[in-house]
Amino acid sequence: MEKEKQPVNSRSIEVCFTPMLFSEILTRDNFVVVLVDILRATTSICAAFEHGVKSIIPVATLEQAKEMKEKGFLVASEQDGKKLEFADFGNSAFNFTRESVGGQTLVYCTTNGTRALDIAKKAEKIAMGAFINLSALTGWLVRENKNVVILCSGWKNKFCLEDAIFAGALAEKLMECKGFVTYCDSTAAALDLWGVARPDILGYIEKAAHRHRLKKLELDDVIPYSFNIDTTGVVPVYADGSILDVQ
Amino acid sequence: MEKEKQPVNSRSIEVCFTPMLFSEILTRDNFVVVLVDILRATTSICAAFEHGVKSIIPVATLEQAKEMKEKGFLVASEQDGKKLEFADFGNSAFNFTRESVGGQTLVYCTTNGTRALDIAKKAEKIAMGAFINLSALTGWLVRENKNVVILCSGWKNKFCLEDAIFAGALAEKLMECKGFVTYCDSTAAALDLWGVARPDILGYIEKAAHRHRLKKLELDDVIPYSFNIDTTGVVPVYADGSILDVQ
Repeated sequence: MEKEKQPVNSRSIEVCFTPMLFSEILTRDNFVVVLVDILRATTSICAAFEHGVKSIIPVATLEQAKEMKEKGFLVASEQDGKKLEFADFGNSAFNFTRESVGGQTLVYCTTNGTRALDIAKKAEKIAMGAFINLSALTGWLVRENKNVVILCSGWKNKFCLEDAIFAGALAEKLMECKGFVTYCDSTAAALDLWGVARPDILGYIEKAAHRHRLKKLELDDVIPYSFNIDTTGVVPVYADGSILDVQ
Repeated sequence: MEKEKQPVNSRSIEVCFTPMLFSEILTRDNFVVVLVDILRATTSICAAFEHGVKSIIPVATLEQAKEMKEKGFLVASEQDGKKLEFADFGNSAFNFTRESVGGQTLVYCTTNGTRALDIAKKAEKIAMGAFINLSALTGWLVRENKNVVILCSGWKNKFCLEDAIFAGALAEKLMECKGFVTYCDSTAAALDLWGVARPDILGYIEKAAHRHRLKKLELDDVIPYSFNIDTTGVVPVYADGSILDVQ
């Protein structure tokens, strides 16, 4: 992302593999962040909007989630993959049916996703990226016409495969659109990893450590759903404390 | 790297893509660090030992390098790829000929490599990893019989391709040896990137941003040398303030 190289009127793509590296991004202005937490937060948030949730208030700590529950909000909250007692739901996409969330405001607290969201707040806008909304998200990013930083939530600050291959899938789709370029090694790596994963995504993701953590907790039923491309047209975007579908 | 899964008597491999992520490694004890800075520090240090340097004192700041020069040491120091005026050499492997460094002690200061070295000091031992000493290093790691953390220097705290593919090459070689295992997504990614790069390493590295930075500085003559596998049998290891060849 050496600015002098970037063609006039082009928009850059930069991938950040974990929130810890966000402070080091080279993109300095006029950018939107795509937040990625495939195995759970961003896939689940897209699922909730697909099923008619009105808005989502993300919170970063359990204390905040508890407080919101006491105020009467519907609350989704889990720790290390397990639903917390005070909450209405855990964070699995499967909890957010039309019956349970349709027309309502949901408070969403999670270990990785909301921490990353908190870090990304210096961006102009923050969109939620998942395989299930890949094309809709790409269309929105093209219309926004800004530089794009793809921020992977990772797992406890560590690099994780499922977020990295999504970053590659999104970068590829953007680069098929005129005007998106990248000079960033992380983006090149994400594109290559996506190239390796694409022929058999579920087989590939077998080797992801996070997948094994979910399996141990018997929460892996949501995995095939999470890697299904373009099952929804929603584009959840965070602004001023809450997430709305801008599509 | 979930400890409960690790077979008895096995040793783990974990890859850390940038020094900023070193605080998050899961490997907690009985480990050695392999420091990687392919385009420059670790390749150059291996080259210096191949050409008979007696020992290398790494320093992290220009001030320290200057101080050592005033004390009469041979000093290699550059900033952003350019030799500094007070230094005897820049940091290119090609500077360290038998005539220039044979039998001598060299002070080595560099933007990325020594910062990473400084961070890794909590490891029991720190070895220098490069394509040019890949097999010799692997043999030494097998004999050490400890868990291995491969620490990529990256470029200004960012992920970089050339260090990542080396991490994959080393992980692959270690996993061919009985007893090395990994449950780390970074290692899985490094292995896949190495798989993509291997058929044409120099072609692959064309897309690395760092390679373009060197090209702009006309310092890219050393690139083919840096990706030549097994041209030396040295294993430089850091201990107590200096680096010695332990082979």
